[in-house]
Amino acid sequence: MLVGYQGEAGAFSEQAVLDLIPDARTRGFPSFDELVEAVSAGVVERGLLPIENSIYGAIARSYDLLWLHPELAVAGETRAHIVQALIGVPGATLEGLAEVRSHPVALDQCRRFLAGHPAWKRRSVEDTAGAVREIMERGDPAIAAIGSARAAATYGARVIVSAIQDDPQNFTRFFLIARGPSGAPSRSGRACLAITLPHRVGSLRDALDVFARTRINLRSLVSRPSGEGPFLYRFYCELEQCDEDVMRAALASLEGEVRVLGIY
Amino acid sequence: MLVGYQGEAGAFSEQAVLDLIPDARTRGFPSFDELVEAVSAGVVERGLLPIENSIYGAIARSYDLLWLHPELAVAGETRAHIVQALIGVPGATLEGLAEVRSHPVALDQCRRFLAGHPAWKRRSVEDTAGAVREIMERGDPAIAAIGSARAAATYGARVIVSAIQDDPQNFTRFFLIARGPSGAPSRSGRACLAITLPHRVGSLRDALDVFARTRINLRSLVSRPSGEGPFLYRFYCELEQCDEDVMRAALASLEGEVRVLGIY
Repeated sequence: MLVGYQGEAGAFSEQAVLDLIPDARTRGFPSFDELVEAVSAGVVERGLLPIENSIYGAIARSYDLLWLHPELAVAGETRAHIVQALIGVPGATLEGLAEVRSHPVALDQCRRFLAGHPAWKRRSVEDTAGAVREIMERGDPAIAAIGSARAAATYGARVIVSAIQDDPQNFTRFFLIARGPSGAPSRSGRACLAITLPHRVGSLRDALDVFARTRINLRSLVSRPSGEGPFLYRFYCELEQCDEDVMRAALASLEGEVRVLGIY
Repeated sequence: MLVGYQGEAGAFSEQAVLDLIPDARTRGFPSFDELVEAVSAGVVERGLLPIENSIYGAIARSYDLLWLHPELAVAGETRAHIVQALIGVPGATLEGLAEVRSHPVALDQCRRFLAGHPAWKRRSVEDTAGAVREIMERGDPAIAAIGSARAAATYGARVIVSAIQDDPQNFTRFFLIARGPSGAPSRSGRACLAITLPHRVGSLRDALDVFARTRINLRSLVSRPSGEGPFLYRFYCELEQCDEDVMRAALASLEGEVRVLGIY
């Protein structure tokens, strides 16, 4: 199975694909938009889309893309442990560094480590694995990247410090996306919904009440601009521990517009 | 009154300060973190912190900063209409442009316009007003910025196209922040809370039920990582149309940990 991810070879997302589907072939795309379009067009069979990082929070563009592509469905879920390494060219040393490059979120996850090296120039790039590729192309021992040990191995770079993130509890959650509903029965008892509610006091309470009464647990709730006017929202709910029939019955009694993004 | 904002002179945020407090003196700070620290340290009397854009959604770092600074309170709220202009040096023309610079969110808000000029190089910078200052310093008629007409006037630049954003309904909401609770009675009947809920089915429903039963309207609900473990959340609620005594009574009956970020 050919599975797409965002980033370059060696990205955390590529590792997450292989952890979920060990025999997958992988293909990287420059952006979330291009990844989602590739799944939609059948260029890849599945795509692994990050939806949330445990430190950074919800990844808004991913939710918006799921809404914008009703032909796609969430077919599964996985999480990856993100361990940021400080990576240099072979022969590079901590003492010899003058610049560090990475994705802004990766730089942000290593604030405390970087605060200990205030003289280093920091540069934001598109992708952690791309940062590793770039520093290897330049071959300058004064320039380091922050990224995965896998990226270092992919490009023959050297891990200078193996885990430099502030918080060791750093995880990213991903949705596996595919064209159309899978038709397969739910395996994990999970579902993801988009709900647009009527504008009145208590409408969100009423929606959550439907789930609580049927003992369906709400794992996450994300509000995003609905696009229908300033400061109107759509809610994305992830449900768990739910029997598919119980959930379908619950959905039927919800007020507002509901779209099932996936049952998996 | 000296009021801080994030950005450089001519920023949308500076205009929002002057719309809210016409006789304010203003001072720009490079980042949200530095703005909030300046309010906390008394360097400025108030700060105007953007919390949400109607297209982009909630500004996560602003909510996190409100949580990290319990010595600060929300003392008011305002919104600004964001109109993005294409700005060049005097004499610049649309035909002569080869590059455009702005904040990534501003570039994103002008996707359709920029799609019509695929040959232009796009460059992300920290700040829309800073982009205008930069192009004036360089003086190259091939380089344009995207920012406010106010920034163009501030730096003596030329508005080439006056409104290039995809969606004319582009607003940013701001909290006015100050040290300590103001002690003044609520003028707008609004409040902002942070709630950490117990981990059980229905806990969010129960919290929202307290508001719905007392006819308190929930204007916005934002979930953010709580920092207490992976995929545990804190909810930020904005309430409106609420009498302060009714709201205080409602809060007393909420389960979980509640912090009032401001009543205004």
